[in-house]
Amino acid sequence: MTQIRFALAQIDTCVGDLDANTAKIRDYAHRAAQGGARVVAFPEMTLTGYPIEDLALRATFRRAAWDKANALAADLAADGLSDLYVAVGTVGTDHDSDKPRNRMVILHDGVVWARYDKHFLPNYGVFDEARIFSAGPGAMAFDVDGVRIGVAICEDIWQDGGPVAELAAQGVDVLMTMNGSPYEEGKTHVRRDLAARRAAEVDAPLIYVNQVGGQDDLVFDGGSFVVDRDGATVTRAPMFMEHLGFFDLDTDAAHQSAGEIAPDMDPDEEVYTACVLGLKDYMAKNRFRGVCLGLSGGIDSALVAAMAADAVGGANVQGISMPSMYSSDGSKDDAADLAANLGAAYDVQPIEPLFVAYQNQLDLDGVAAENLQARIRGVIVMAYSNAKGLLALATGNKSELACGYSTIYGDAVGGYAPIKDLLKTRVWELSRWRNRAATAGMGIGGLHIVGNERGDAGTPLPDGVMIPVNSIEKAPSAELRPGQKDSDSLPEYDLLDRVLAAYIEHAHGRADLLADGFDERTVDTVMRLVDRAEWKRRQYPMGPKVTALAFGRDRRLPVTAAFRE
Amino acid sequence: MTQIRFALAQIDTCVGDLDANTAKIRDYAHRAAQGGARVVAFPEMTLTGYPIEDLALRATFRRAAWDKANALAADLAADGLSDLYVAVGTVGTDHDSDKPRNRMVILHDGVVWARYDKHFLPNYGVFDEARIFSAGPGAMAFDVDGVRIGVAICEDIWQDGGPVAELAAQGVDVLMTMNGSPYEEGKTHVRRDLAARRAAEVDAPLIYVNQVGGQDDLVFDGGSFVVDRDGATVTRAPMFMEHLGFFDLDTDAAHQSAGEIAPDMDPDEEVYTACVLGLKDYMAKNRFRGVCLGLSGGIDSALVAAMAADAVGGANVQGISMPSMYSSDGSKDDAADLAANLGAAYDVQPIEPLFVAYQNQLDLDGVAAENLQARIRGVIVMAYSNAKGLLALATGNKSELACGYSTIYGDAVGGYAPIKDLLKTRVWELSRWRNRAATAGMGIGGLHIVGNERGDAGTPLPDGVMIPVNSIEKAPSAELRPGQKDSDSLPEYDLLDRVLAAYIEHAHGRADLLADGFDERTVDTVMRLVDRAEWKRRQYPMGPKVTALAFGRDRRLPVTAAFRE
Repeated sequence: MTQIRFALAQIDTCVGDLDANTAKIRDYAHRAAQGGARVVAFPEMTLTGYPIEDLALRATFRRAAWDKANALAADLAADGLSDLYVAVGTVGTDHDSDKPRNRMVILHDGVVWARYDKHFLPNYGVFDEARIFSAGPGAMAFDVDGVRIGVAICEDIWQDGGPVAELAAQGVDVLMTMNGSPYEEGKTHVRRDLAARRAAEVDAPLIYVNQVGGQDDLVFDGGSFVVDRDGATVTRAPMFMEHLGFFDLDTDAAHQSAGEIAPDMDPDEEVYTACVLGLKDYMAKNRFRGVCLGLSGGIDSALVAAMAADAVGGANVQGISMPSMYSSDGSKDDAADLAANLGAAYDVQPIEPLFVAYQNQLDLDGVAAENLQARIRGVIVMAYSNAKGLLALATGNKSELACGYSTIYGDAVGGYAPIKDLLKTRVWELSRWRNRAATAGMGIGGLHIVGNERGDAGTPLPDGVMIPVNSIEKAPSAELRPGQKDSDSLPEYDLLDRVLAAYIEHAHGRADLLADGFDERTVDTVMRLVDRAEWKRRQYPMGPKVTALAFGRDRRLPVTAAFRE
Repeated sequence: MTQIRFALAQIDTCVGDLDANTAKIRDYAHRAAQGGARVVAFPEMTLTGYPIEDLALRATFRRAAWDKANALAADLAADGLSDLYVAVGTVGTDHDSDKPRNRMVILHDGVVWARYDKHFLPNYGVFDEARIFSAGPGAMAFDVDGVRIGVAICEDIWQDGGPVAELAAQGVDVLMTMNGSPYEEGKTHVRRDLAARRAAEVDAPLIYVNQVGGQDDLVFDGGSFVVDRDGATVTRAPMFMEHLGFFDLDTDAAHQSAGEIAPDMDPDEEVYTACVLGLKDYMAKNRFRGVCLGLSGGIDSALVAAMAADAVGGANVQGISMPSMYSSDGSKDDAADLAANLGAAYDVQPIEPLFVAYQNQLDLDGVAAENLQARIRGVIVMAYSNAKGLLALATGNKSELACGYSTIYGDAVGGYAPIKDLLKTRVWELSRWRNRAATAGMGIGGLHIVGNERGDAGTPLPDGVMIPVNSIEKAPSAELRPGQKDSDSLPEYDLLDRVLAAYIEHAHGRADLLADGFDERTVDTVMRLVDRAEWKRRQYPMGPKVTALAFGRDRRLPVTAAFRE
C-alpha cells in the first residue's frame, strides 16, 4: 500500500511583495512538514502574487522572482526540509520568445527541482493572460515515493484537451492543481463540478488549492478541496481565510477516506464576507489603518460602514454626517444610531453654510445645484482622508453606478467602493442578513475571514442590531431637493435590478431582454441609462495617446502592488 | 497594358454609429466612382468604427452590422455603382466558435461579394484583439479586370508569415491593406518602412489606407499611402484630415508613376494637431459644443485652452480664473490675456470666500489645506460644466500625472485631458511652436485637421501671439502656498522628463535607468513617485467583484459609443 500525505496551503499573498510572500511560503512549508506532508501545494503565482498584470513584462521583476525561488529552495534545505516537495507558483521567462510564463516550480533538495508552465491562458472577463504570458508546451508529472503526480494550473482544467488530456493518457495517481480563481457568487459549485469531471477524466483524485484574499478589484475565496475519482468531496477548506489542510492519498484504495469538510456558507454571508475581505486586504496591502465615509442615514452608507467595522473594527471607522437643508431628522438620527452601534467616530458637518457660500458666487439651480451638494460632501470626505490618513470609502451600489445615478466627484468620491458590485435589492438583503447575524450574537469583527477565527464573536453589539431598521425600510432618496425619491428618476429597484442583472450580469441584448418579458419602455430606459453612464463609471479623463507608451490602455499595473517592486 | 484606378478613402468614423458610418461610406464610394476608381478601400472596421472593444461581443450589434453591410451593397447597386468594388471593414461572426471576427467585406454587384477575416490579432499596448476576435484562417485575393488584388488588415502586415507570406507565394499584382493604426510620435516612418518591406515580399505595390480621427483615448492620424514594390512612395495623403486619394496601378510597369504626396509635418505641429483632433472628435462624437476649464495663468491650462480654441473656436471656450490668496497678480493677468487672445468667455471666481467657509468647519493645514483649494476649483469647474452643458477639461500633463503631483477630484477633474500624454518639457515646446505658428499667420482654427482645410488661417489673432510669453517663461508653481515651486517637490523637469521618458515610454527598469546614466537617488525618487501614483491615475474606486460580470475589468466598452447601439 502506497500512502502519501499532501498539504493544501491556502494563503493570502500580495502582488509584487516577494519578501513577504516568500516568508509566508516558508512558514507554511514548515507547518506542512510538521503535519507529516511529503508534498505541499500553494496557489497560482504564490511568490509574485496574482494577478500581476504588466508587472510580468518587467525583466527586472522576473529576475528577482527567479532569484527568490532559488533562495527559497536553498533556505528550505538549510531548514532541514530538503525532502519535502514544495509546489509554488511564480513568473518565469520563455527564453525563445522572451515572454513571461505563468509557472509552477517544485522546490526540492535545495533547488528548483522541476517546473511546469501553464498551457491554457484565460483571456476573457477579468483575465488578460494571453496578452501577458506565452503558453507552456505541455504536461508535466513527477514521482514521489512511487506515486505519480500530474500537475495543472487553473485554466488548464477549465478547457478540454491540453495537459489534463495528456496526463489522462499517460496515467497519474493524482492531479494536483494550483489556482487563482476569483470569487463570484455561485462559483463554488461550478468549480466542484468541473473538478469532478477532470478527476473522472484522469481517473484519479484531484487536489484544488486556491488563493485567498483581496487584490484590487478581485477577491479570492479559497475554499480549496480534494475530490475523489468519482467526484465525491474528500476534504474542503473554509472560504475567505488562510488555511492549511491535509489529504492522505492511498493509491491502492478505490476511494479515498474523507477528512475535514467545511460546510457551505449561507449565500448572503458569503457575499458579505467577500466584500469585507476585499476591503480589509485592500487596506492592509496599501497600509491604511482606518476609513472615512459619509453617513447619510441611508442604507448604502450604513451597509458600507458595517462592512468597514467588520473589516477593521468600529474604532477605525470615521463616520461623517453632512446634513443639508433637505436632510430629514430621521436620516440624521439613523446615521448617529449606526455610528453608536458600530462604536465609530462620528462628526457632524452641516453643508448649508458651504452651499450658501458657493451659491453667492454661482447661483446654480436644477441638477447643477443638486450636484453641488454632493460635491461639497466629496470635498469634506477627502479633507478627512487627507488630514487623518484615512481611506475614503465610496458608498455607491451597482444599480446606481449602472444608471449613472450618482454625482461624479461627489458621492462617487473614494479610493475603494465596497458595494460597487451589489445591486440595490442585494444591499437590502445583506443588511437584513447582517442584522440577523448580530442578533444571533455575531458582533463586530466576528466574521470568518483572513486574520479572524470562525466563532470569534467580535465586539458585542449593544442591542444585537447593527443597522438601524429605519435605514433599511424607508424609501430610498438622495435628499438633494425637497421630497426627492430615487423612483422619480429610476424604475422601482425591484424591476430595475432584474433588468440590470439580465443586461449586465448575463449580457442579454435588447432582443433577449424583450424575450425575458420586460416591457419595451423599461428596457429602453435602462439600456439608455447604462450605456450613457459608461464614462462616469470609468471616471478618469480620456486623453489622446501621442507617445509609444501612455497611461491608460497601454500600461496596466495592479494598484496595490505599484510601490512594491 | 492593364491599368486600374484605386481610391483610398481615409475617413473618420464613430464607434457604434452604424447609420452615420454607412452614410459616409456611401458618399465616399460615389466620389470614388466619379473619380474613375474601380476599387475603393476604406479603413479597418469602417462600418462599426474602431476599436469597438466588447461591443463586438454583443450578438445584436453584430447582426445589425451584418444587415447594414447587405443594405449598403444593395443601396450602392441601386445608386448605379454595382460595378465598383468597395472594400469596407466590419465585424463578423465565426460560426464555428460564435466568436466575433475583424472582417473586410467586398461589396460588389449589389451583394457582399467576398470577405476576408484578419488573421493576426494584436494583443499588446492599446490592443486587446485576441481577447475579442477569433483569427481568420488565411489569405484572400480577388481579380478585377485581370488584376489580382491581395488583401490584409493592419496587424497582418506587422507580423511575419501568415496571409502576406501566402499571397507572396501565390503572386499578386497589388497588396491592398485597411488599417486602424493609432497615432504615436514617429510612427509614420515605422509604418512606411514596414510597408516597403511587405511590398518587396509580395513584389508588388502596397496600398495602405488608414483611419483618421479621435476615438476615446486614441487618435488615428490617417496619412494613407501607396509604396511601390521597391519601397518608393507613390502617393501619400495628409495626416489628421479626411481625404480621398487615387492610385493608378499599371501592372505592366516596373515602377508606378507618382501622384500627390503630402509633405511630412513638423514634429511639434504633428503632436499638437493630434491633441486637437482627439479633443475635437471626442466632443463631436459625444455631442459637446463647448468646453470649460480653469485658467491659472500657468502653461498647462494655457496650452489646453489654445488647443480647445483650435478645436472648436475660442467662442466655445469658457475660461474660469479662480484666484486664491496665493495667486500672483502676474498669474491673473496672464489668464486674462490668454482668454482675450483666444476670444474665450472669461469669468473670475475667487476661491478665498469658499476656502474660509470650509476652514471655519474643518481647520485644515498642510497638504490637506492645499488639496482643499484645488478641490474647491474642481467643484466650480464642474458647476460650469453642469450648468452650461460644457465638457470640463483637465489640464494635467504627463509629468505631473506620472508623479502624482496633482489633486484627485481637484485639478484632475474633467472628462477629457488633452495633454495627459505630454511631458512638461513638451508642453513648453508645443506652446512655443503654437506661438510661432500664430506669428506666421495661423489664427485660431487654422489647423490642418478633419473638417478644416489646410491653409485656412482661421480667426486672426490680435497680435500674432496666442499664449502669453510670461506663462511659458515663469517657473512652474501650483500656487497653493506662499512661494511654492514645483521644484520643491519634484526633480527639475528637464531631468525628470528624461527619467520619465526612459521609465515609462521606453519601459526601462531600475537597472536600465542606472545604466542610462541617471543617478541612483533620482531614479529611486522617480520610480517611487510613479509607482505610488498608480491609483490616482486610475482614479475610479476599486471595489470587490462578486457577480459574474462586474463593471471594470470584466466589461470594456468604448466611452464614446456607449449610447449608440
